[in-house]
Amino acid sequence: MDHKQTTIFGIYPVQEALSSGVIIDKLYVQKGISNPKIEAILKELESKDASISHVPIEKLNKLTRGNHQGVVAITSPITFSSLEEVVERVISEKEFPLFLVLDQISDVRNFGAILRTAECTGVDAVIIQKKGGAPVTGDTVKTSAGAIFKIPICKVDHIKDALFYLQGSGITTIAATEKTGKSIYSCDLKKPLAFIMGSEGKGVSGSVLQLVDEKAALPLLGEINSLNVSVACGAFLYETVRQRL
Amino acid sequence: MDHKQTTIFGIYPVQEALSSGVIIDKLYVQKGISNPKIEAILKELESKDASISHVPIEKLNKLTRGNHQGVVAITSPITFSSLEEVVERVISEKEFPLFLVLDQISDVRNFGAILRTAECTGVDAVIIQKKGGAPVTGDTVKTSAGAIFKIPICKVDHIKDALFYLQGSGITTIAATEKTGKSIYSCDLKKPLAFIMGSEGKGVSGSVLQLVDEKAALPLLGEINSLNVSVACGAFLYETVRQRL
Repeated sequence: MDHKQTTIFGIYPVQEALSSGVIIDKLYVQKGISNPKIEAILKELESKDASISHVPIEKLNKLTRGNHQGVVAITSPITFSSLEEVVERVISEKEFPLFLVLDQISDVRNFGAILRTAECTGVDAVIIQKKGGAPVTGDTVKTSAGAIFKIPICKVDHIKDALFYLQGSGITTIAATEKTGKSIYSCDLKKPLAFIMGSEGKGVSGSVLQLVDEKAALPLLGEINSLNVSVACGAFLYETVRQRL
Repeated sequence: MDHKQTTIFGIYPVQEALSSGVIIDKLYVQKGISNPKIEAILKELESKDASISHVPIEKLNKLTRGNHQGVVAITSPITFSSLEEVVERVISEKEFPLFLVLDQISDVRNFGAILRTAECTGVDAVIIQKKGGAPVTGDTVKTSAGAIFKIPICKVDHIKDALFYLQGSGITTIAATEKTGKSIYSCDLKKPLAFIMGSEGKGVSGSVLQLVDEKAALPLLGEINSLNVSVACGAFLYETVRQRL
């Protein structure tokens, strides 16, 4: 597998990349541009796992010095897995599957550290949303210490759809949130599980919190009451490891 | 307290800062320079908590565009606490003191995240070494989410001296290391404790490992066998919180 990330710019090169099966992680399109070839590219990407951002031309000019014609594509250094396939396989193989759902973790270094911890704690797959999450960049690869190539990553349209699917497959969903009186240490983690971790700024989204089976918090003994999300995620995952030992 | 960090350059300004009681966190001196006034500055700093680096002139030119005359000082945004005073106070106040010793954690963001976790888990003081650790910069302040102003930080000449002092005060020292078969989950953490966390690259130094009372590891269930140090530190501290609940 080729682990490098490439920037492709210009209409024809992006078309070519698509038709030769290159996986595009992110497509930047110039805001307000009207071009049938770009429309066709957008249409083709709709059925794939790419996230699409409509941005001012200045952003495109920053991404490349070349003649981008209104489109810049960032290729993915990894291939994504199908949520349905991964869940089915894991359920058939393991008594207590462990999934990790990231609700718009946007910091690349946190994303990388979380992938690294997930690999070390036996997480079966990490589920991310197409929009709003950290892109899979060279920095992600580096801070993940290579974990990104060892653990299946599933990209879904909406976190909510993933939650419904996981719940429908008999997996208990637990959101990490301060908006509960329940400590993670009073949760039974010896069952098929998915943890949901939210963004640094906002935590797990309100609409996602309404859907989960359980909410759990880490005790906070100081005044700051705010942990780095990769540290909090590590504490949740290691408590799971401890209970399952 | 003034939380800003300032760069002071030039012989006279650095002398002035010292004589007016400004705390210098780090002094960069031009390699091979010979100047009695700089010698005097170095001599005065020896008795203080500053770390001193002898660097090529190019490094100094990067730190400031001004006429540095071979010396650039970075002031500390925080004041450091005396290890002896902190330990005595904590021991008289608490049944199970909790200290965190950082053995040359050089990454500023990891240092900040560790301070943040320490504040959230009730750590009584963080002990760092003058040489080899991350400087206390604006980035540390930011990634610590302000924890740096809430938790006493003690700067010592050598980690080993701190360990002797802690042990002499009845505190059990536990190093986080993969070089042991013992899991943190089989350690009794309901006692006066100090955890020692090592650098990202090398872990806890060999000479420190020989001194500690216990060694403990986190289970690693994947292939990568390497956690981010702030994540590992969080897992140790939260296991302590759990046992003491």
